[in-house]
Amino acid sequence: MRGAGAPAGDKRRPELSMDRASVATITRLSSYYRVLVESERDRQQTISSKVLAERSGVSSAQVRKDLSIFGNFGRRGLGYNALQLREQVGHILGLGRHWRVALVGAGNLGRALFAYKGFRKQGFHVEHVFDVDPAKTDELWGDVRIRPVSELRAAAAGNRIDIVILAVPADAGQKVANMVVDAGVRAILNFTPGQLAVPAAVAVRYVDLSIAIESLSYTLTK
Amino acid sequence: MRGAGAPAGDKRRPELSMDRASVATITRLSSYYRVLVESERDRQQTISSKVLAERSGVSSAQVRKDLSIFGNFGRRGLGYNALQLREQVGHILGLGRHWRVALVGAGNLGRALFAYKGFRKQGFHVEHVFDVDPAKTDELWGDVRIRPVSELRAAAAGNRIDIVILAVPADAGQKVANMVVDAGVRAILNFTPGQLAVPAAVAVRYVDLSIAIESLSYTLTK
Repeated sequence: MRGAGAPAGDKRRPELSMDRASVATITRLSSYYRVLVESERDRQQTISSKVLAERSGVSSAQVRKDLSIFGNFGRRGLGYNALQLREQVGHILGLGRHWRVALVGAGNLGRALFAYKGFRKQGFHVEHVFDVDPAKTDELWGDVRIRPVSELRAAAAGNRIDIVILAVPADAGQKVANMVVDAGVRAILNFTPGQLAVPAAVAVRYVDLSIAIESLSYTLTK
Repeated sequence: MRGAGAPAGDKRRPELSMDRASVATITRLSSYYRVLVESERDRQQTISSKVLAERSGVSSAQVRKDLSIFGNFGRRGLGYNALQLREQVGHILGLGRHWRVALVGAGNLGRALFAYKGFRKQGFHVEHVFDVDPAKTDELWGDVRIRPVSELRAAAAGNRIDIVILAVPADAGQKVANMVVDAGVRAILNFTPGQLAVPAAVAVRYVDLSIAIESLSYTLTK
């Protein structure tokens, strides 16, 4: 075993194999992870690339190709050990850690994202909420007090922020992104419409909620 | 030209070529569509599969393979006509129509989805809002009155509902999905955690908001 195929807990991994994976590959790994969690619930000890592929909506060849980037996980004909593969894929994805997340944008979407249980379950903890509108600050969400976005930099300096979730109006997107970059945060999950210009060292992922609905209109159009 | 490569407005398409496309392919088409809309804004008349690929985060071979399912859109060495390709891809995706959408779940996420401008822009109109909690009914969102979910069936009978967006608590997901199926709706966009059991004739797409954040934790883990 090599790379992320090393036992969970072993943090050493060759850089080379990590750089080969595209965002699309990593997104598929997240899907495989979910299927593996379900298989574990169903007490299945092994899983074939065929079953993993079917439940993830991709081809078996794709599953094998994606996993081969990170190491050698299965034995030909025997399938994968479901528990081990789940741990290994989770380790590749950086799950099982405590990720410190700040949310900027305390509107309806921000509130929904703050309450979203899926984040916390995977280790993403929204510990700060900021808003551009002074009228919203000082409001309490659980035990988190909403603060003006001008305090983002000080908050990041005092207490590491790994990821910022951006859920502000479209016209505030770039301005807030600049503040996030200035604060030294390296990762942005962007729910705000429009592309952001950020330095190459900062990773941005865009969430477009209408993409999923278009695969339904495609199906209904057939 | 053949299949969905026929001029926009021509609704005839061979069934065969439509069934070949997976959800993953259609999701990529949605990304290409967004890139093409941007190129049009930049007044670019042609676009190569290389540029389309780079901006969509996939390989050129993938772009050519995806588009070849639906017809012959480009001429070797000349690239694609950006405007024409945007119209053709939009037509494949069923955009430019008026899709009648009902939202079930008037919580924070439901409210954010109701306000989400991206849906309406692509032709998805949330015309009904239902909730399982009687305390929420009769509230007005714009000119839409929130109604008890028990009225979904009558609403669908009186006025076609193409797509239901499900944003209810996890424990209500399957029960509401059954009501959606009984009402004769053929497509569900599910934001509620958990798999839904529905007949094969009903299409379900799952939106897992934590998948995008995992490609950031992967990047930060490197």
